[in-house]
Amino acid sequence: MQASLNHYCLSIPSVDHQVGQEAARYLDTLTKPKGSLGRLEAIAVQLATITGQVKPRVSPPGIIVFAADHGVAEEGVSAYPQEVTAQMVRNFLQGGAAINVFARQIGALLEVVDVGVAQPLEASGLVSRKVRYGTANFLKEPAMSQEEAVAAIEAGIERAEALIKRGIKSLIVGEMGIGNTTASSAMLAAAKHRIPVIADGFICTVAALLAVKLCPRVSDVLLAGHRSQEPGHQVALSLLDKEPLLDLGMRLGEGSGAAVAFPLVEAACRMIGEMATFQEAGVTEGGER
Amino acid sequence: MQASLNHYCLSIPSVDHQVGQEAARYLDTLTKPKGSLGRLEAIAVQLATITGQVKPRVSPPGIIVFAADHGVAEEGVSAYPQEVTAQMVRNFLQGGAAINVFARQIGALLEVVDVGVAQPLEASGLVSRKVRYGTANFLKEPAMSQEEAVAAIEAGIERAEALIKRGIKSLIVGEMGIGNTTASSAMLAAAKHRIPVIADGFICTVAALLAVKLCPRVSDVLLAGHRSQEPGHQVALSLLDKEPLLDLGMRLGEGSGAAVAFPLVEAACRMIGEMATFQEAGVTEGGER
Repeated sequence: MQASLNHYCLSIPSVDHQVGQEAARYLDTLTKPKGSLGRLEAIAVQLATITGQVKPRVSPPGIIVFAADHGVAEEGVSAYPQEVTAQMVRNFLQGGAAINVFARQIGALLEVVDVGVAQPLEASGLVSRKVRYGTANFLKEPAMSQEEAVAAIEAGIERAEALIKRGIKSLIVGEMGIGNTTASSAMLAAAKHRIPVIADGFICTVAALLAVKLCPRVSDVLLAGHRSQEPGHQVALSLLDKEPLLDLGMRLGEGSGAAVAFPLVEAACRMIGEMATFQEAGVTEGGER
Repeated sequence: MQASLNHYCLSIPSVDHQVGQEAARYLDTLTKPKGSLGRLEAIAVQLATITGQVKPRVSPPGIIVFAADHGVAEEGVSAYPQEVTAQMVRNFLQGGAAINVFARQIGALLEVVDVGVAQPLEASGLVSRKVRYGTANFLKEPAMSQEEAVAAIEAGIERAEALIKRGIKSLIVGEMGIGNTTASSAMLAAAKHRIPVIADGFICTVAALLAVKLCPRVSDVLLAGHRSQEPGHQVALSLLDKEPLLDLGMRLGEGSGAAVAFPLVEAACRMIGEMATFQEAGVTEGGER
């Protein structure tokens, strides 16, 4: 496992800081006081380094929701019975969940993957990559075997590669129940293909942290979408050294925080892609203000 | 002036808190843990009170940019020569400014109004309601006469009413140079027609504050889009008792902060409008989490 992962990590290209500098210089020629669009300008520069394009694109975005059940649920740590995971997967496939609504708003390709729902599940539109029927209760035994962990990681890489082949220009990874092993590897795949990744709340940020531990270059393609209400999230963000775009008190998961933050990333792209320069618009350039 | 304004204020309906309570109850039937969408849920409730609809709409939004020059510019307080205001108005009309880019992204109707640009300006697409050729330098004399202030306020009401007639469901007011007298009255008009207003940065928040002083009911239809880097903005926000949706270090004006925040407001609408209930989706309801 470690050997094939190491091989994958080595295939991840580094981001292009020279294109980033070019983007930063270009931003200062646009018809606005220098720096007046704040973090949107910083995002535009980061996207330029990731994609290697001074005028980067992030649309259409792709969203993958990994669904699985966790064995520790038998300890009564969740407010919901475990059958809800399978019911919510059906809700995703019918388009009624929050992530469906936000995916439609941002024009995203949405894929739902069963990596380990406890119940047998077959439904039109569902991608089944079931590693096992729910993980074990980690208070009593390891949550899964090493072989199962490898299968989960491979599923994440495979699904992200599939969406990238279908033309997505950025990736949002969400989870339902719990699916963070798989989520972490989908990030790896995005980094390999120079696709920006917008991380969601607590569980996905932990997944991102895991991905960065495996392959430090993954950090360069990550943007933090949303500050979750879950107490551990701030710790994970600090370890990643990322500042979220939004702080709206959300704690749903499903990738919803990242999907709601996506229009800000899109705004940064459109800004550097579409604004007129002082020269093009015939506007006298001022000093700093 | 005071008499006709008082008359206008009295015509502003109060918001509907009963519909707001209905919306809050409906939110708890949707397939998500209660309250897990944080401020998006609070926004949905506020929009319900404003519009009187449990499933409110904010699209298409309208954006009015009021352009004017301020006489105090002769004291050298701006980094830009005054000719830039007219040049930037042309840039708005050609679609090259930041607000044009963000307006296209959110599908907004955008109108540019000359309320007091110092230079003569005629251009296709420009709405001319010039009150005077730039205000006077208020360090030496009043910025404008009382008659001119009335004309500026009337222009704001008239242009907002015109866009509302064209079908906008929410309003963003921006300024270029300075146009806050007019901006404040456009809010008044939105409140009268139960249209939510997303306030932009410092100058527009001051305008909103003025509007609220004139007609306290305006406060109910206001959402603060963005925390500006201008130091006075926090003071104005505190006086309005509003917490901005975004804090991205922007300080451009033009309505850009509000336009970038708009997709969050749209997300709140779509969430309450499109998500499935537990019953519709056949999902077992859980407790709090």
